[in-house]
Amino acid sequence: MTKPVVILVRPQMGENIGAAARAIMNCCLTELRLVAPRDGWPEKLHNRAYATASGAECVLDEVKIYGTLTEATADLHFSFATTSRPRGQVREIFTPTAAAESARGKIMNGQKVGFIFGPERTGLENEDMMHVNAAIQIPLNPEYASLNLAQAVLLVAWEFLRADDATPFVQIPLGNAIPAVQQEVDFFLGRLITQLDPTGFFTSPEQKPQMLQNMAALFKRANLTDQELRTLHGILTALTN
Amino acid sequence: MTKPVVILVRPQMGENIGAAARAIMNCCLTELRLVAPRDGWPEKLHNRAYATASGAECVLDEVKIYGTLTEATADLHFSFATTSRPRGQVREIFTPTAAAESARGKIMNGQKVGFIFGPERTGLENEDMMHVNAAIQIPLNPEYASLNLAQAVLLVAWEFLRADDATPFVQIPLGNAIPAVQQEVDFFLGRLITQLDPTGFFTSPEQKPQMLQNMAALFKRANLTDQELRTLHGILTALTN
Repeated sequence: MTKPVVILVRPQMGENIGAAARAIMNCCLTELRLVAPRDGWPEKLHNRAYATASGAECVLDEVKIYGTLTEATADLHFSFATTSRPRGQVREIFTPTAAAESARGKIMNGQKVGFIFGPERTGLENEDMMHVNAAIQIPLNPEYASLNLAQAVLLVAWEFLRADDATPFVQIPLGNAIPAVQQEVDFFLGRLITQLDPTGFFTSPEQKPQMLQNMAALFKRANLTDQELRTLHGILTALTN
Repeated sequence: MTKPVVILVRPQMGENIGAAARAIMNCCLTELRLVAPRDGWPEKLHNRAYATASGAECVLDEVKIYGTLTEATADLHFSFATTSRPRGQVREIFTPTAAAESARGKIMNGQKVGFIFGPERTGLENEDMMHVNAAIQIPLNPEYASLNLAQAVLLVAWEFLRADDATPFVQIPLGNAIPAVQQEVDFFLGRLITQLDPTGFFTSPEQKPQMLQNMAALFKRANLTDQELRTLHGILTALTN
């Protein structure tokens, strides 16, 4: 599957270009385009982009430079631009999550998609928006919504990665440990109950079923391993000898 | 609803504490706890945290300092720690999305939840993990998974914000414009067809229905405004006079 292109329009700070390259690589994207970077490319005086890209230099090595956003979007079928301001023009506004899903759908249908980010302080101009098909607004704290450029790239690229990610939401890796089957857990519970019965722990016959259910819930929800069960048996033996 | 607490364990760089404070505030969280910050608090020589917190100083003003993670988690019911390494211990691993949902569920049931982040280079030690109830792994590019501290805080806090966010996935704000009802769109389409009929645009009667359907799809998918329809009428008039 092709990946979305990230386009930075008139970026001012090399540090931000380098940090954006890192976010791009973190999230398995590869293609970075710069439109009229303020200090030229490679940056004239010192190359701060490479200094901050630590490990993501390959993204900068392949960066493409354009004079205008018209040229940078010429081969794209659709692009989304992050913007914090509502505009006079009528344009769909996506959350980053929805933009990622929409981009994924378009890409699966063979389209080439871009995510566009404006300059650090000013953001995109209305004229830039003429080259944009839809907007992304990140629904952050309305009283404190400013993100730096690389963080905005990170959130949007992260949402794209996440939309296509197959990682199980929750997993419990056991390493070399062997998960216990319920027969083994029940055997331990049975042994525990046998030891508890003569102690007066179960205060009344009426209470006992409920107490057993609560104890089972505690030990069963832990997805115990073989080794943990052996530890519990050892504890029980140690306490009752 | 109470919010999750963010705990930074032995943070080294004031800049990262400040940037984390920004991410916390961006995502509507408020409570930051530091465990044994390397340079003390407020930082001894210069206060880089405040220098980078621009606008999120209120989070730093309220920061709580602890000597150990035991103390910092004492009043919490459950905490998640981000970790890049699998551990020997058996512990559930959540994606940030799943951790956010799980935290939300616990908070709605009255629990106090924490998100724990380790020191910049080394991450959390195995001993730290004794105070942690579950792990978060961020499923980034496996060949380039390192995030800086504040970016990790941003992604986790963002997922929590997102889990509880009611922003419509896609919206099309019209501002002062009035959305056109379909009768008006159909009236324009009818006028257009009437003008096209004598020109030979519809090459054959067999093709015409399909062509009409395609034209309708184009104009109907745009969710046109009143003003846009007037513009289209004006264009049609200009071209046919």
